[in-house]
Amino acid sequence: MSPEEFRRMGHLVVDWLADYQLHPERFPVLSRVKPGEITDALPASGPRQGEAMEGILRDFEQTIVPGLTHWNHPGFMAYFANTASGPGVLGEMLAAGLNANGILWKTSPALTELEQVTLSWLRQWMGLPETFFGIIHDTASIGVMHAIAAARVYACPTGRMTGEWPRLTIYCSEQAHSSVEKGAIALGIGQRNVRKIAVDDKFQMIAPALAASIEKDLASGHKPFCVVATVGTTSTTSIDPVPEIADISERHNMWLHVDCAYAGSAAVSPKYRHFLTGAERAQSLIVNPHKWLFTPVDLSVLYTSRPDILRQTFSLIPEYLRSRQDPRALNYMEYGVPLGRRFRALKLWFIMRYYGRDAIAHMIEEHIRWAQELAVAIAADPDFEICAPARMSVVCFRKKAADKENEAIVERVNATGEIYLSHTMLHDRYVIRIAIGNMGTTRDHVFRAWELVRHGA
Amino acid sequence: MSPEEFRRMGHLVVDWLADYQLHPERFPVLSRVKPGEITDALPASGPRQGEAMEGILRDFEQTIVPGLTHWNHPGFMAYFANTASGPGVLGEMLAAGLNANGILWKTSPALTELEQVTLSWLRQWMGLPETFFGIIHDTASIGVMHAIAAARVYACPTGRMTGEWPRLTIYCSEQAHSSVEKGAIALGIGQRNVRKIAVDDKFQMIAPALAASIEKDLASGHKPFCVVATVGTTSTTSIDPVPEIADISERHNMWLHVDCAYAGSAAVSPKYRHFLTGAERAQSLIVNPHKWLFTPVDLSVLYTSRPDILRQTFSLIPEYLRSRQDPRALNYMEYGVPLGRRFRALKLWFIMRYYGRDAIAHMIEEHIRWAQELAVAIAADPDFEICAPARMSVVCFRKKAADKENEAIVERVNATGEIYLSHTMLHDRYVIRIAIGNMGTTRDHVFRAWELVRHGA
Repeated sequence: MSPEEFRRMGHLVVDWLADYQLHPERFPVLSRVKPGEITDALPASGPRQGEAMEGILRDFEQTIVPGLTHWNHPGFMAYFANTASGPGVLGEMLAAGLNANGILWKTSPALTELEQVTLSWLRQWMGLPETFFGIIHDTASIGVMHAIAAARVYACPTGRMTGEWPRLTIYCSEQAHSSVEKGAIALGIGQRNVRKIAVDDKFQMIAPALAASIEKDLASGHKPFCVVATVGTTSTTSIDPVPEIADISERHNMWLHVDCAYAGSAAVSPKYRHFLTGAERAQSLIVNPHKWLFTPVDLSVLYTSRPDILRQTFSLIPEYLRSRQDPRALNYMEYGVPLGRRFRALKLWFIMRYYGRDAIAHMIEEHIRWAQELAVAIAADPDFEICAPARMSVVCFRKKAADKENEAIVERVNATGEIYLSHTMLHDRYVIRIAIGNMGTTRDHVFRAWELVRHGA
Repeated sequence: MSPEEFRRMGHLVVDWLADYQLHPERFPVLSRVKPGEITDALPASGPRQGEAMEGILRDFEQTIVPGLTHWNHPGFMAYFANTASGPGVLGEMLAAGLNANGILWKTSPALTELEQVTLSWLRQWMGLPETFFGIIHDTASIGVMHAIAAARVYACPTGRMTGEWPRLTIYCSEQAHSSVEKGAIALGIGQRNVRKIAVDDKFQMIAPALAASIEKDLASGHKPFCVVATVGTTSTTSIDPVPEIADISERHNMWLHVDCAYAGSAAVSPKYRHFLTGAERAQSLIVNPHKWLFTPVDLSVLYTSRPDILRQTFSLIPEYLRSRQDPRALNYMEYGVPLGRRFRALKLWFIMRYYGRDAIAHMIEEHIRWAQELAVAIAADPDFEICAPARMSVVCFRKKAADKENEAIVERVNATGEIYLSHTMLHDRYVIRIAIGNMGTTRDHVFRAWELVRHGA
């Protein structure tokens, strides 16, 4: 494709995206296609001869777009917050066009250095200690797998070489994200060695239960090596008691990982800095700007106060070669599995500069305010009940009725195409979840969702 | 950012990228900044108040661009082929703006189905069997880690639950990519359990040496579970004898992984289909469209003939829930660690359709032809010697002189800003590497590189 054709097509695509942003309600938020419908609409084999880009873009619009669930729709209130903000998309456009790859510092110095700089800015905004070193992964699941791998080497440094490990056990609450369990399974630690600690009535890990579980494992010859505390759990945004967990973790010289993939962004607001109380004692922490920091997927940040252990876990560079390196020429490949490294930091830098800290904090504060107003409205309705404290931008509630009726309500709301809600199970009951966090969502959208739910859609 | 501001800025960015494509030689291919220079040029903290996008883009151009190594430059002949082709960049623009996330089929049906469709097209183009199931990862390093994890569960299905494994050993040639070793280390298999099998004078794994190593391990109580054969090694593009390796692997019921991250794309040309002879017997295989298939980073494809084992390794969905799923509504999260999934397939679909199979095959054939012409020219020069067979688009050679002189030549060539070369070590000697594969590179660029080298730059 010639530069001039790229220019012409690029302008078309930008116009399409700008129109898309102008009228996000044009498409139903949840796709209505049936399984296999897109596949069946596409040829079974790729073309021998090239085709005109205009036709490809037409097919994109006619065949692909109806099959998309629109994460950028203001009525998207399922799962967690997410936004492809304008500056974020511009950053992705440039990253794609430049195609820089940060394998080593020298393969694109600005990629590596901008990653360090933006993650230092974000660290400051979140109030985390200067000792925290940041690295970007595609997803939090990959990030937490790296954290657990480092924790394992911290507990047993010889294992990296020998492959021989003590009977390791890892701890998280029963409300922790499934990625903790999956990371442990992937690393070969064993699903049965993941201890899911009970939670209290606010869905927060019971610290004495954690302590007891660790003691029991120690008594039976296990080696407790890692605790994952969650700030902002997936179901209810509950907050584990990080300071108490840190006390326990430190007592046993274990690695503490704090999962604040969603909620970490809220700490940008001084009002919600307290969410992260105790997190400064963690050995690692994950926050996902591609959730509540208005960044297009994918961009998940792993911070660690022990970059030395992370490097010891993953580096293949012998010590005698490392000493020749310029200490300011960081090679991220030494700190994880991936070798290739897309220029993800660019979009985050654009977003942080374009909005600035105060505006980002304000948007997050508004989301939390709306969620709390919504929770008050729901609590005031005698037919409904709140099922978990609404401390962040998610409200968990249900109609005082059978699970089936609640399920039917969600299905009918989602079928409107106006709003997309998800659900969770709490105490074995079906609970509706409204999650606020898209930059285009307004208070009106939130209360429209409630109106649809209240009237059974 | 309002849609109208996004439109205005988006047009600016597209124009910048089109101009960048028009005059790629405007920038030195290898960045000339010093370590820390970009960091020092940026503020130590993010701004409180937002800034105008125009100023941010100006800073991008003035501060960031000089710190980039230009992977899209036609003189980029280091490492391996790569290109941010026009249709690929357009695909990334739309993926970023839509912000679709394929956690589950229903969270964006078209994302999941287009990934299946394009990977089926690519599979056909590469001549791989219909039984091969494809999934996209960011990098080949993450992909091979998944393959090794699946191989481990194939060898010892109970280990996933118990975390107890036999004394596993894994095999690759001493020319294999470091990601095999890193994957094994990350998974806890132990660095000393990675056997690096000797290669012949063409840098190909010696199959009898593999067989002997496996026998020796079996005799000493190890459990050989996985062999990685490489088609197109990183240093010399050598090809391991896959059919013989498959014989050995099958005899011991081991998992065979074929790493053709670079060379797999060449199989799109019927002329080079034979590179993959034997690969149809692999349990898994990796090819990186973000190398030689003109796709912007990141897009690495993991194929497996055993998706059942991949799912058994990573899925957290209990069997009784799975039976309720529509078999055509594939949830990729069951097949790996990541939960979030960017719409990477879109760019690949654009590229395959825009160019078509014949043009892609032709470009790859040209790259190989130029490499062979270059090898002939180098071999004809009495001052230089070819150091490995040039079967693909990479030529390994050296001046018949001390390592230091060869190193100095590469440094001087790279300092011109016209060409960027890398090197490798073969038989403990410094070897210059010219790697062809960018879509903008012409035969003239290749011979200009040779001219610079020949005259000591």
